[in-house]
Amino acid sequence: MKILVINPNTSASVTEHIRRELIKIKRPDTELVVVNPEHGPVSIESVLDEVLAGPPTMDLVRWANAERFDAIVLACFSDPGLDAAKEISDIPVIGIEEATMHLAAMLGHKFSITTALANRAPTRDVHVRLRGLESSFASALVMDMPVLEMDADPVKAKQRILELSRRAVEQDGAEVIILGCAGLTGYAADVERELGVVVLDPTSVAFKIAEALADLGLCHSKIRRFSRPRVKEIK
Amino acid sequence: MKILVINPNTSASVTEHIRRELIKIKRPDTELVVVNPEHGPVSIESVLDEVLAGPPTMDLVRWANAERFDAIVLACFSDPGLDAAKEISDIPVIGIEEATMHLAAMLGHKFSITTALANRAPTRDVHVRLRGLESSFASALVMDMPVLEMDADPVKAKQRILELSRRAVEQDGAEVIILGCAGLTGYAADVERELGVVVLDPTSVAFKIAEALADLGLCHSKIRRFSRPRVKEIK
Amino acid sequence: MKILVINPNTSASVTEHIRRELIKIKRPDTELVVVNPEHGPVSIESVLDEVLAGPPTMDLVRWANAERFDAIVLACFSDPGLDAAKEISDIPVIGIEEATMHLAAMLGHKFSITTALANRAPTRDVHVRLRGLESSFASALVMDMPVLEMDADPVKAKQRILELSRRAVEQDGAEVIILGCAGLTGYAADVERELGVVVLDPTSVAFKIAEALADLGLCHSKIRRFSRPRVKEIK
Amino acid sequence: MKILVINPNTSASVTEHIRRELIKIKRPDTELVVVNPEHGPVSIESVLDEVLAGPPTMDLVRWANAERFDAIVLACFSDPGLDAAKEISDIPVIGIEEATMHLAAMLGHKFSITTALANRAPTRDVHVRLRGLESSFASALVMDMPVLEMDADPVKAKQRILELSRRAVEQDGAEVIILGCAGLTGYAADVERELGVVVLDPTSVAFKIAEALADLGLCHSKIRRFSRPRVKEIK
Amino acid sequence: MKILVINPNTSASVTEHIRRELIKIKRPDTELVVVNPEHGPVSIESVLDEVLAGPPTMDLVRWANAERFDAIVLACFSDPGLDAAKEISDIPVIGIEEATMHLAAMLGHKFSITTALANRAPTRDVHVRLRGLESSFASALVMDMPVLEMDADPVKAKQRILELSRRAVEQDGAEVIILGCAGLTGYAADVERELGVVVLDPTSVAFKIAEALADLGLCHSKIRRFSRPRVKEIK
Amino acid sequence: MKILVINPNTSASVTEHIRRELIKIKRPDTELVVVNPEHGPVSIESVLDEVLAGPPTMDLVRWANAERFDAIVLACFSDPGLDAAKEISDIPVIGIEEATMHLAAMLGHKFSITTALANRAPTRDVHVRLRGLESSFASALVMDMPVLEMDADPVKAKQRILELSRRAVEQDGAEVIILGCAGLTGYAADVERELGVVVLDPTSVAFKIAEALADLGLCHSKIRRFSRPRVKEIK
Repeated sequence: MKILVINPNTSASVTEHIRRELIKIKRPDTELVVVNPEHGPVSIESVLDEVLAGPPTMDLVRWANAERFDAIVLACFSDPGLDAAKEISDIPVIGIEEATMHLAAMLGHKFSITTALANRAPTRDVHVRLRGLESSFASALVMDMPVLEMDADPVKAKQRILELSRRAVEQDGAEVIILGCAGLTGYAADVERELGVVVLDPTSVAFKIAEALADLGLCHSKIRRFSRPRVKEIK
Repeated sequence: MKILVINPNTSASVTEHIRRELIKIKRPDTELVVVNPEHGPVSIESVLDEVLAGPPTMDLVRWANAERFDAIVLACFSDPGLDAAKEISDIPVIGIEEATMHLAAMLGHKFSITTALANRAPTRDVHVRLRGLESSFASALVMDMPVLEMDADPVKAKQRILELSRRAVEQDGAEVIILGCAGLTGYAADVERELGVVVLDPTSVAFKIAEALADLGLCHSKIRRFSRPRVKEIK
Repeated sequence: MKILVINPNTSASVTEHIRRELIKIKRPDTELVVVNPEHGPVSIESVLDEVLAGPPTMDLVRWANAERFDAIVLACFSDPGLDAAKEISDIPVIGIEEATMHLAAMLGHKFSITTALANRAPTRDVHVRLRGLESSFASALVMDMPVLEMDADPVKAKQRILELSRRAVEQDGAEVIILGCAGLTGYAADVERELGVVVLDPTSVAFKIAEALADLGLCHSKIRRFSRPRVKEIK
Repeated sequence: MKILVINPNTSASVTEHIRRELIKIKRPDTELVVVNPEHGPVSIESVLDEVLAGPPTMDLVRWANAERFDAIVLACFSDPGLDAAKEISDIPVIGIEEATMHLAAMLGHKFSITTALANRAPTRDVHVRLRGLESSFASALVMDMPVLEMDADPVKAKQRILELSRRAVEQDGAEVIILGCAGLTGYAADVERELGVVVLDPTSVAFKIAEALADLGLCHSKIRRFSRPRVKEIK
Repeated sequence: MKILVINPNTSASVTEHIRRELIKIKRPDTELVVVNPEHGPVSIESVLDEVLAGPPTMDLVRWANAERFDAIVLACFSDPGLDAAKEISDIPVIGIEEATMHLAAMLGHKFSITTALANRAPTRDVHVRLRGLESSFASALVMDMPVLEMDADPVKAKQRILELSRRAVEQDGAEVIILGCAGLTGYAADVERELGVVVLDPTSVAFKIAEALADLGLCHSKIRRFSRPRVKEIK
Repeated sequence: MKILVINPNTSASVTEHIRRELIKIKRPDTELVVVNPEHGPVSIESVLDEVLAGPPTMDLVRWANAERFDAIVLACFSDPGLDAAKEISDIPVIGIEEATMHLAAMLGHKFSITTALANRAPTRDVHVRLRGLESSFASALVMDMPVLEMDADPVKAKQRILELSRRAVEQDGAEVIILGCAGLTGYAADVERELGVVVLDPTSVAFKIAEALADLGLCHSKIRRFSRPRVKEIK
């Protein structure tokens, strides 16, 4: 089995971080490839960043199909370009946000999501609502740290996650914490140990769901919503 | 007052069609400019098309801000790139879908939306749900005509709209019909006359809302959700 | 264009206040008439007041139709009698609450609404829910001032609005503030300047939507929900 | 125990019909009084009718409080003026619609509601939604008979109810039928016998809930939403 | 009229407590029988307890049908086994939770529910959601007292209820308090007197609804959802 | 890795069927054990059956914990006893319904669910609603075949599934079909081939999710909702 993980931002250090963590959990017979586009924003922290990361991500999705990967994981918590990727892909594309939100809803009554900056808390509301999971959503936890700063200062990032998670459990009724950022891969276990709640690392969760889907020979449905777009002129 | 209407696809004929219709309804003192990007898909009929149209649309939004327009209308019914445009704009950006859905909810108990192709009916569900308007939504009406064919064969397009609208009124409880495509500007009045229901042309509706917002000196809120993105490296 | 604004309470001072403010924002070619019923409560602060204001408001709606106005604005934030008015009117009737809630949902992630007295906070919940806008609603802000006291002591009213709005932004995630009372027309700009959020004056918003609808020749749909009631005996 | 049933329309024949039916089901120790206002519409078939019936209904609610009744039943299926009545009443006021919808949600998976005319089907949607019972609602069944015609031609009315109820059960998944009109009191048993489903007569249901509330010494809560309105000038 | 109240736990003292309280409110002509199963948990404080109490409760439901009772009240606030009981019963089965939640939604804008232990607060969310009453739900109030301790120390229990109810009214917007436990029967009046809000004792409410249904000759619908299960082998 | 699959009914043939199918998809290093309780109903087709299957299922859950399995799959589509199982288990318990509904929501716009008998269609509504997935739900497809008949006559069962699935795709907008019964394991591939849509076998899906969770070392959260029940007397 061959799985492509796409980090849609252009930071090689984030890509490397993801690879390092996934290697630890991949099955021995799974071939793991982690890539990022050459062009686009170095981190995704706004809808603007998502828009700019969109076209280069599509190129990688096409490449994964041509190279006959068995599944694609889109490793940015806002799932930028996910629906478009599903349209053009005949192999399953798993967004780390959608996979993790749905799993979290199974693992506890309510989940909270850490988010880098305050402007993204509304995005969490919107994406939860899109999936109908409002009643499983406890709160968005604003870290107030840019994504690359988290990558550069993991000690501070972990400290902040701990502090916010504790508040979420005590005040918001959270039973599960989602680390809402691809760059936090590898922090879940530590935080879980200290807090005693379930902490989900979205990239790991989605990667395992990708393996499961590939085992089952399942893809997203290709009729109607994610059917292949008509070929047309692009000026 | 100076309003920019952005047709995010690259078909000059659609752009021209929109201009011709809006000239009829604009206030005498409103300066109207209608543009389309130079690069990108010739029509927007999939999420893929939306992704590809995104970056060039952002350039036009920035230009409108630099040129001190009073408001921007994004003239594609799926509102591609709307949230990102709001992030980078200090003048109001009105999506024709959001403006029309909200107005339709005021004008009748339920609305139906015509859509070019079957793959887009789920998009209508999703966008209605995003705005909480499920209880005002009667149905998506699939025309089974590509967007450019509608532009090329208006007689057939009108016939199809009439037929679908009649069914929506009789079977789905629709009291308002939304012509869910920027390229249908100018058909509303005809259809309304024949059916006796309210028929909304989204581009016209959004244009008038743009004039109203500009009159009131209102913009979308620039705190939190649509706050200006941090400046960052784009590789 | 000729627009009738109905203040459904019987306080001439409130009517005058509304007229004074709308004159500032009406288009030069719009004829503005602001009226209130002769009989009924001097302010509307309960559902009882709404019930009592209902029949005299209907008379004014009929008169506006007879006098061939182009649109009617119902200037009380609870939109008392709005659905009945739509039934008997062949010209558009715009409730200031419905117009403002829908516009607010476009301008920011969540809105808060100031309300005069605590008994009306539940009404805000109910009316938001009626329109499906729960996910756009941050909070009701209770001023604890009767409506006429606001009119009499604008300095205190503004101070209270500032204080409540600040809390709504900081604690409830509000990005837009709605001044939920017709009598506050004219305060929006001041508050907006001080707080940096979008502040909506419902009467102004609805008035501009009325102009837009009249420009577009649109009315609410007259089939089914708002169809003309059967003529019957009234004892 | 002394219960007042208010028929808010001015048709003495409907009032008499209600009295005749309730006498059959009232407990022996319950004193039953059924009244209608002197002034107002002879039937309630539009929101306009509701508005016109509002003020005279309030007078009867005040009278019931002065006369020390133990509970009030508002016997019109749209519950016109219910919230205002609760504001001014210190004894419980039960709307036949609200009582019946909540009971129906307990007695079966989904309920359908017969309604006199097509313009009122949307009202059913709105009122179901107001109470959060969307998932218990199967359909509105349009009889296409004015209320007074039902009263005058009970054979035709029953035939129509049977026919519509059968369709609701077979096609809409209805397990309970609500006869959505006060004037149909007394038809439930017949229809239930023929169809084998549960058929609810709202006036009977609400009357029994009124007896139950009076037994328990319960009233609606008088804090916040239904608190007594401030005394004020009514011009 | 003969009504069976089933206390699904095996604590005779709770059964006796319920009997003592219901005798005070039952109609003189109602025959009251209160029973509990011989086997099963002594209190119901988890879903596990509900599962274990299920089969013996079914036996009592069958017995009530054989003995020709007119209605059954299931007296445990989580309504354990309610749907199964409805399947096998031809006489109405009323769950104290469902009856009380629906009545509470009629008596005030929002209700709060006291619950013995923290693990059951999520259950309240889930059950409110099941019935669509989210918008009527203010909060779950965690007493942090096991059920049998409440029974043993009523003074402490009342004190705790008062304290939590006050907070619910002041902070959560509650207008009605539900004592979410069968063992609290008899406390409502005291608490109501002190706080001035409506306080509902679920067992009393359900018992009165049972009398009302029996008077009306109504049962839950026996088609589809609650139809009698097919006879089958039980190993 | 060692996974226990519990068939909560007492039909050894169904248990064997499940084992045969899961062997085909399990990873080579996964140890698979499939069991059923000795006592209880031979099939689960009503809430009554769920209640009766509850206690023996709990015994198997306890046994799996004692035997140090890595995960438990509860293989009955209604997930009977799932929440109680999570309370008493320190290893993950996966319900085949919850896992499959959440995965289906990721794989297509809407899913339909086949169900054996008409009385269970409402259960599908309720369980979809419990998880907030209403907007992803197309329809329940009633096979009108008892569960054991499906097991005995697979040709007829497949034919019926094909027929219903085709209708779901064409009329209800389904893009994914869920075979809502543990006994249908192994039919998905055939049906998918013929219809071109995604067809999910819940037991297979849940089994693969179980492997994924075990790989990740994840369990459901043991704080609050699924915390271990207090030890108490069971009479």
